[in-house]
Amino acid sequence: MAGRAGSFVEFALPAPLDGGKHRSVTPQLNDLFKFLRFPSISTSSSHAPDVRACATWLVERLEDMGLLVRLHETPKHPIVIAKNAHKPGRRHVMIYGHYDVQPVDPLELWESPPFEPEIRDGKIWARGATDNKGQMFAHALGVDAMLAENPDLPVNLTFLFEGEEEIGSPNLAQFLVHNCDELKPDVIAISDTGMVAPGVPTLGYGLRGITCCEAILRGPSGDLHSGLFGGSVANPASAIGRLVASLHKIDGTVAISGFYDDVRPLEQWERTMWSHVPGVSDMDYLTVTKSPGLYGEPGYSTMERVSSRPTAEVNGIGGGYQGEGSKTVLPSEAFAKLSFRLVPDQDPKRIMELVAHHLEWNCPPGVRIEIIPGHDGKPYITDPNSTYGLAAQEALRAAFDAEPVLIREGGSIPIVQTFRDVLGADTLLLGLGLSDAQIHAPNENFPVENFEAGIRLNQALLKELAK
Amino acid sequence: MAGRAGSFVEFALPAPLDGGKHRSVTPQLNDLFKFLRFPSISTSSSHAPDVRACATWLVERLEDMGLLVRLHETPKHPIVIAKNAHKPGRRHVMIYGHYDVQPVDPLELWESPPFEPEIRDGKIWARGATDNKGQMFAHALGVDAMLAENPDLPVNLTFLFEGEEEIGSPNLAQFLVHNCDELKPDVIAISDTGMVAPGVPTLGYGLRGITCCEAILRGPSGDLHSGLFGGSVANPASAIGRLVASLHKIDGTVAISGFYDDVRPLEQWERTMWSHVPGVSDMDYLTVTKSPGLYGEPGYSTMERVSSRPTAEVNGIGGGYQGEGSKTVLPSEAFAKLSFRLVPDQDPKRIMELVAHHLEWNCPPGVRIEIIPGHDGKPYITDPNSTYGLAAQEALRAAFDAEPVLIREGGSIPIVQTFRDVLGADTLLLGLGLSDAQIHAPNENFPVENFEAGIRLNQALLKELAK
Repeated sequence: MAGRAGSFVEFALPAPLDGGKHRSVTPQLNDLFKFLRFPSISTSSSHAPDVRACATWLVERLEDMGLLVRLHETPKHPIVIAKNAHKPGRRHVMIYGHYDVQPVDPLELWESPPFEPEIRDGKIWARGATDNKGQMFAHALGVDAMLAENPDLPVNLTFLFEGEEEIGSPNLAQFLVHNCDELKPDVIAISDTGMVAPGVPTLGYGLRGITCCEAILRGPSGDLHSGLFGGSVANPASAIGRLVASLHKIDGTVAISGFYDDVRPLEQWERTMWSHVPGVSDMDYLTVTKSPGLYGEPGYSTMERVSSRPTAEVNGIGGGYQGEGSKTVLPSEAFAKLSFRLVPDQDPKRIMELVAHHLEWNCPPGVRIEIIPGHDGKPYITDPNSTYGLAAQEALRAAFDAEPVLIREGGSIPIVQTFRDVLGADTLLLGLGLSDAQIHAPNENFPVENFEAGIRLNQALLKELAK
Repeated sequence: MAGRAGSFVEFALPAPLDGGKHRSVTPQLNDLFKFLRFPSISTSSSHAPDVRACATWLVERLEDMGLLVRLHETPKHPIVIAKNAHKPGRRHVMIYGHYDVQPVDPLELWESPPFEPEIRDGKIWARGATDNKGQMFAHALGVDAMLAENPDLPVNLTFLFEGEEEIGSPNLAQFLVHNCDELKPDVIAISDTGMVAPGVPTLGYGLRGITCCEAILRGPSGDLHSGLFGGSVANPASAIGRLVASLHKIDGTVAISGFYDDVRPLEQWERTMWSHVPGVSDMDYLTVTKSPGLYGEPGYSTMERVSSRPTAEVNGIGGGYQGEGSKTVLPSEAFAKLSFRLVPDQDPKRIMELVAHHLEWNCPPGVRIEIIPGHDGKPYITDPNSTYGLAAQEALRAAFDAEPVLIREGGSIPIVQTFRDVLGADTLLLGLGLSDAQIHAPNENFPVENFEAGIRLNQALLKELAK
């Protein structure tokens, strides 16, 4: 059983795997390590075989638990469905997770190889440790433990594990449409979000949406000598700077016309609650990001900006000479990879129309623009005090022995909105990640104690939802 | 002897090396090919041995001609000095060139490997073909031909060939200071610039200067998940866009305070002459650059903008995710590699002070800026109708059988100003390059006929300067 909230330092600090208090969890951690070793990077076509190998391993492991498992093909990466024997009259609980991971570059910044998991300072270090293999596998191991005690679970359970979350789940919605009758649950649980602070159980009731695109500016047909041609034609690298600069006003607000039109204002109880939540103060954000300063939309706290206000971000910018020293070229082209975090009630399609119009209108003279749309997902919000919401709060209370806090998440899980649209079910966000988990970045990590809490949480949740 | 001006199509179109009209030039072209095969990239420390090997080969080839040759060490790449037996009472003519070349990336855009020279469509294709191995070696072969006819040249000749031009000649000025008495010539000739059009002999009497720097913006200590952190801290990739955009006003003029203060206005005769020069019309620039449009400072023709107006160029920009698809990170840092082409009477040191002040002042909030200064060089201007200038015009007339045009070059050869400062001698710019030579870019090339004209030009020049 867990220690009290805020007392996470009382948890056993993990000793090396070959001795100490964690000898008893070795099999579960070793299981997770096998899962983490697959470089299941879904964005890279060269890693497609690794994604498949990971899915195949997962199928076998879930079958070992006694579940009925099936690997479903999609046009890209397979979906794994695992169930117990469903019986009439019991609540149907779906638990969603994803076994694909983000790319790992810049590789040289990792302190240990991303696909060779190891434990240091009480944390598991590996790509996917938090996002999402560690969290989803805690649920699998919770069920494993329950089934070992009693081969009959208190609910009808469906695990839905996909391999395309990091590329925007392009095939999951269609899969849900095709299998709607079979899959339709009463409620869905996902652990793919964050805890506000170590030891503070957190129920998420909102998510930001997203829409992405890449803008490519093309000028001369090839790189030109900046002495012979500088001054004659537009420089795409200068132009991409101007285009990127056009996205924001000087005060940090997004300058795209109509961008804020459908943004739902924050409720007063949200602003009040969040002003007291541990782990989300401005100082916390400064400490975690190690940024020279905070920066964002005026009139909102950092927590409010991250959870409930939309943004325009440049995820990547490039063009011209990238090597050592200098090279006096006038580049042929330049690009910016853009993403927009959206909040209720912004619509991703509508926002991308506004973005595309803005980019075309603000494209500097002398270059041609190409806009390549990327993935998108709607923002999400639900009532944290519904029947299922209250059951989730109780499970969190039981697993962590502390009072849960209610938040909106800054990240995007577009499929949550799709679950509502297609399956008609709401989703409980029972995040186990910490803000310094380095997800999507080098040195991703997941505390061993959160992994263990996740195993307990799963068991408490299925019991609460069965009531 | 050459055909008439503008009649370059009457030149023998080079046939394959194993047959046709160019069988007679095979030994000279083969000599040049040996020279071009050295990957003497001075900006890359890994190519230092290649730069040295190239210099050693050059020493041996010049000794074979009967010249007195010495390889001088510098802190980086060696300088090669070659002389005939100097006699009192003759004019001392120095011919400068450089045997180092620019990097070759992006390598995949080359139609043939950059260091495996070949002839296609009457042109030599290789890195350094025009800049500068092809042009400098034409002078060497001109002297070779004269010495073969008569072991006594009409002038005291000094070849000065360096290996650091593409990194801003960091050691040449000091070398000149140490060897000033021995080297001090009456006049200097350089073929490292361009002809306005094929078959139109061109005397350059001005050069743009340059100053370079790299601006690096740093935000959070590592890449952050743009969902969990987007809105909390400044995005360095957004910030570099804003910083780059601050360099220009909306009309294309440079927005750095004081940037134009010391710019010498164009003379009326220059504007008049250039409005009639072939090969430099707006349509010519469009054709050569294959850009969607021309763009630059209002109130000036493209030729005027390129030759006699200063610019601010982004040579490279980067930050965040550079790979395939999307990755929703908030990058830790971003950079811009900047260069500024300068004209008389701008001072590079003063301009870099203004640039640094501008970048620091305009650095967006929430990021830290580091400015790394690069190389620089003063702009240059001389009288094209001096005694030596008139001799150069006569040599061009003789070599090309056409009337030379007088221009200012857009490129930078900082050492030309240093020659004036240290050696007290003016420089004749007898360019043999064409505007589609792709120097500093993939598929660099040099017409065989220009190579041959360069060999003739050298002989005519030494005879004219001896008068």
